[in-house]
Amino acid sequence: MVRNVIVGCGISGAVTARILAEQFGESSLLIDARPHIGGNCYDFYDHNHICIHKYGAHIFHTDLRRVWEYLSRFTQWYPYMHKVLGFIDGQFVPIPFNLNSIRMTFPEFLARRLEEKLVIRFGFGSRISIQELRKSEEKDLVFLANHIYTKVFLGYTQKQWGVTPDKLDPAVLERVPVYVSRDDRYFRNRWQGIPRHGYTAMIASMLEHPRITVKTDTSWNDVKEEFRGSDVRIFYTGPVDELLDWRFGELPYRSVRQDFHEFDREFFQPAAVVNYPENHDFTRISEYKYFLADQASRTVVSFEYPSAWKRGENEPAYPVAGEDSHRLHRQYVEAAREEYGHIHFLGRLGDYRYYDMDKAVARVFSVTEAL
Amino acid sequence: MVRNVIVGCGISGAVTARILAEQFGESSLLIDARPHIGGNCYDFYDHNHICIHKYGAHIFHTDLRRVWEYLSRFTQWYPYMHKVLGFIDGQFVPIPFNLNSIRMTFPEFLARRLEEKLVIRFGFGSRISIQELRKSEEKDLVFLANHIYTKVFLGYTQKQWGVTPDKLDPAVLERVPVYVSRDDRYFRNRWQGIPRHGYTAMIASMLEHPRITVKTDTSWNDVKEEFRGSDVRIFYTGPVDELLDWRFGELPYRSVRQDFHEFDREFFQPAAVVNYPENHDFTRISEYKYFLADQASRTVVSFEYPSAWKRGENEPAYPVAGEDSHRLHRQYVEAAREEYGHIHFLGRLGDYRYYDMDKAVARVFSVTEAL
Repeated sequence: MVRNVIVGCGISGAVTARILAEQFGESSLLIDARPHIGGNCYDFYDHNHICIHKYGAHIFHTDLRRVWEYLSRFTQWYPYMHKVLGFIDGQFVPIPFNLNSIRMTFPEFLARRLEEKLVIRFGFGSRISIQELRKSEEKDLVFLANHIYTKVFLGYTQKQWGVTPDKLDPAVLERVPVYVSRDDRYFRNRWQGIPRHGYTAMIASMLEHPRITVKTDTSWNDVKEEFRGSDVRIFYTGPVDELLDWRFGELPYRSVRQDFHEFDREFFQPAAVVNYPENHDFTRISEYKYFLADQASRTVVSFEYPSAWKRGENEPAYPVAGEDSHRLHRQYVEAAREEYGHIHFLGRLGDYRYYDMDKAVARVFSVTEAL
Repeated sequence: MVRNVIVGCGISGAVTARILAEQFGESSLLIDARPHIGGNCYDFYDHNHICIHKYGAHIFHTDLRRVWEYLSRFTQWYPYMHKVLGFIDGQFVPIPFNLNSIRMTFPEFLARRLEEKLVIRFGFGSRISIQELRKSEEKDLVFLANHIYTKVFLGYTQKQWGVTPDKLDPAVLERVPVYVSRDDRYFRNRWQGIPRHGYTAMIASMLEHPRITVKTDTSWNDVKEEFRGSDVRIFYTGPVDELLDWRFGELPYRSVRQDFHEFDREFFQPAAVVNYPENHDFTRISEYKYFLADQASRTVVSFEYPSAWKRGENEPAYPVAGEDSHRLHRQYVEAAREEYGHIHFLGRLGDYRYYDMDKAVARVFSVTEAL
């Protein structure tokens, strides 16, 4: 008899199963409605020997030594450092905006003035928000803030979250960074990389344990009658509103579609990810061979189209932050606890939080420690 | 009957055997616990025809004409000039910091100011320490010193020596150099190179002498009973605390692990050695095909992880300088002399000094001259 049922075989579910198996000596049944393990981290090698992230680019980055060391038991790492370019005014410009972006964007006299003012006012190496620039009341810096807001932030955010500018919380401007350095990297974490043989291989290695049983093509609805009223623990990484048949209404989610294209050329674009804030309806294009430096004469990219989640039409990918939605999520969680007893929620969908992968793993650590 | 037993078949042991054979006309037994000659200089050609340094990158460089000429009897040299890049703020920057590094790191107005101040104050072509920069009380130069300290020196040193910043001797800042020139080389010695066919071939050639007998897979413990009480001379290049069964406690050593990876691409990184002061747990990545310009469609690198030496777990690689450790080493040496009579200590481990290869050879010259 299994002691735990884990719904969803992404990184959260897999780490949970492994910890229960090793540290608690408990058996788990791990199910996933999809035909594969890995959840949204799922990747596979295509006929070009390019490792494709089926649900969009996943780049691991963390400052949590414990998470890094835990995952390193199951994979080697390729020390990929993520760079993102924005296609802005016809140029590929480093994102977040930094001193290199300024040099590429503006004429020399203006770039120089901006560089000097940024370095003198904020210090070389600092990270500031465009909100701080605006507050500076220095005309040049306000101009720079407005340029970044309009060209880098606004269009991307509208596509990503499906909101009109007037509904954007001004607080988000606090989170639009400018780097007063020439560091083109997207992340500044100590540990960054891609599993040397892909995420699926890493997760498969985690699941190789005699106390873990995996069933793909199996949804919670397929098995729930078997466990109702039993005292198995449930770890649920899916949408909690679906679990309770949307009884309090739908939670809002964003959904993401990847349109894959293959090209008969070595490279499509100059970096793994290029953002398109202004043009087209996709937010970004990811080119997969960059992540593991796959050698291939052809290349594969995906165009990423976000949209609202609609039941029956697409899959929820991540939560939409907001007081109302978090309140509704808590209501669902409480009702689910009443109904199922030992149920725990994990992952982006279960916890209704826009976790990075490392935070999802750290959350599993804290949930299992509290058992 | 042999006249000398030499323990350890690295560069120190091999030069000792050759000098004893040629200049003294004496026979030596040269033993090594490992299955190969060469000690930590050991290299080999892999299936890609890339010459791999099994125990990490070895680059020969010296100003000692006598050492250079001596070794040149046993090998031709490939005139490799070593360059090291630091992966700092997302860029590959020449290490030690020089005027090129400054150009790459800072915005133009600041780079220009730093260049001018360095050249005017210290003179073009000079070598200064970041300690001198700090003392200058010129704000820009103090800023530069702090940048180098934080970004280049601190993280690397912590990983390399396993110490926290507060335990770092401030005197080490005297040894962190800045070059007021555009010379990207790591060393400034007159003679620099890699043995044309590798270190193992050079050492094998040295050992080709009728008065030298080599036994690998043979430790001192395997043979010591044979020689105890005899009047053979012992030349010992291993750890002296192990020789005396750690009777006064363990000497501290650092150990180094090389994690090798092969990639199906021509090059992995833009130089033979890239330091990672800030990211990851390894200190550096070495790419071996650079040293002899091996032509191969694939490439082999090693990630270098330093750690404390732990008896039975890993091998000692080099000593940890410090008053206490040097005092303990002297105590061991004196006790060993009392016990074994004619015993001499050589090499990084035997002498407990962080010798470069040329200094290890020079030390053999002076020890054999004093016989």
